Amino acid sequence: MSDRTKLRRKPDRAVTARTAIDAVLDEGLGVHVGLITGSDTGVHPVVIPMLYARDGDHLLLHESPASCLLRTAKKGAEICVTVTLLDGQVLARSGLRHSMNYRSVVVMGKTVVVTDYDEKVQALDRFVDHVIPGRVAAIRPVTATEVRNTTGLALSLKECSMKERTGPPIDDDEDMAEDTWAGLIPLGISAGGPLPGEDTSGESVPAYVADWARGPGLANGRGG
Amino acid sequence: MSDRTKLRRKPDRAVTARTAIDAVLDEGLGVHVGLITGSDTGVHPVVIPMLYARDGDHLLLHESPASCLLRTAKKGAEICVTVTLLDGQVLARSGLRHSMNYRSVVVMGKTVVVTDYDEKVQALDRFVDHVIPGRVAAIRPVTATEVRNTTGLALSLKECSMKERTGPPIDDDEDMAEDTWAGLIPLGISAGGPLPGEDTSGESVPAYVADWARGPGLANGRGG
Repeated sequence: MSDRTKLRRKPDRAVTARTAIDAVLDEGLGVHVGLITGSDTGVHPVVIPMLYARDGDHLLLHESPASCLLRTAKKGAEICVTVTLLDGQVLARSGLRHSMNYRSVVVMGKTVVVTDYDEKVQALDRFVDHVIPGRVAAIRPVTATEVRNTTGLALSLKECSMKERTGPPIDDDEDMAEDTWAGLIPLGISAGGPLPGEDTSGESVPAYVADWARGPGLANGRGG
Repeated sequence: MSDRTKLRRKPDRAVTARTAIDAVLDEGLGVHVGLITGSDTGVHPVVIPMLYARDGDHLLLHESPASCLLRTAKKGAEICVTVTLLDGQVLARSGLRHSMNYRSVVVMGKTVVVTDYDEKVQALDRFVDHVIPGRVAAIRPVTATEVRNTTGLALSLKECSMKERTGPPIDDDEDMAEDTWAGLIPLGISAGGPLPGEDTSGESVPAYVADWARGPGLANGRGG
């Protein structure tokens, strides 16, 4: 944690354990990447949803060489990457005490372009296995052309922070007598049954795909 | 749409219908707000998850008077608000063709502080009914003190853009003979059964809460 990732607002929601941070990063399916970009009317922030993966102490992002993120990142600009998991609706007795249970990780820093060939291959494989563990083993290896035409960006987890809200609604004492149902509605990402592509409709769904879709990998995203 | 919200990357994924944009904004449960902030080491982007609501042609954000967003917004700074719904995992035959189906809306601009008392009350009610339609009617009205201690920010939808990916994986011709299952796994947010708070455990769950948790409000978030 650095001075700028230290939580000033609601510090009681801060989580500092690296294992908890890694768990959020490994469970999330997408990130929101913030960067500063310029136009005729001055600089302004942009927030882009992207796929990602974690590899040890780094987040990996991958981009076409034409992308705005890549141009910005190559200039050594700072970015901010946020992963948020929504765990529940918090229904309190008063409107202002309504909230959500969530876990959220913010990572700040400058990205490094992954240039080493083997590291690029490993990064591309990490993206695929982040989607569905076991998938890399089931598909053909990446080709040299694919590796050449893709750019991997790595962002160190050195500057990261986590915030969460858990538990039931917290009402003011004077509202406790209100005749209003209060409580939690747990939320999570759930998957429907796999839909085969046109040319695989005759084949059975592989076990690692069916297992993932049944949701054990998402189970800890549900609850209060 | 303005010049800076015009999509340059993958313009085939652009959606311009305002009804589609509103549907994403009404279905989303949280936004990621990007802003530019300063520290001893220079300016950098920050991306914060927040609750929100839509009211006609504006997004509403609400904040404690102490928040970083509010300080930044009051200076007339530009922000970027992104809402992303994840609709499916796209499993292709090659690693690089893996993707996600999603709908994503980006809104850019400067926020306006809501100062009119009645407009503030309406904004606070919109937040609550965005969480669960029908909830405002079931809770006590906001008090004058609550209205005074909260700041509502409104962001016009004038500068917004939407992107989506739908449909099955798209493989290169030379990969179609690969012996690999390819297809979609639909994703959506799902809710567990409502968990009553300590003092409501004897009461039955109201119909509008139970209905929401059964998911019809989220149903269009599932699928390919």
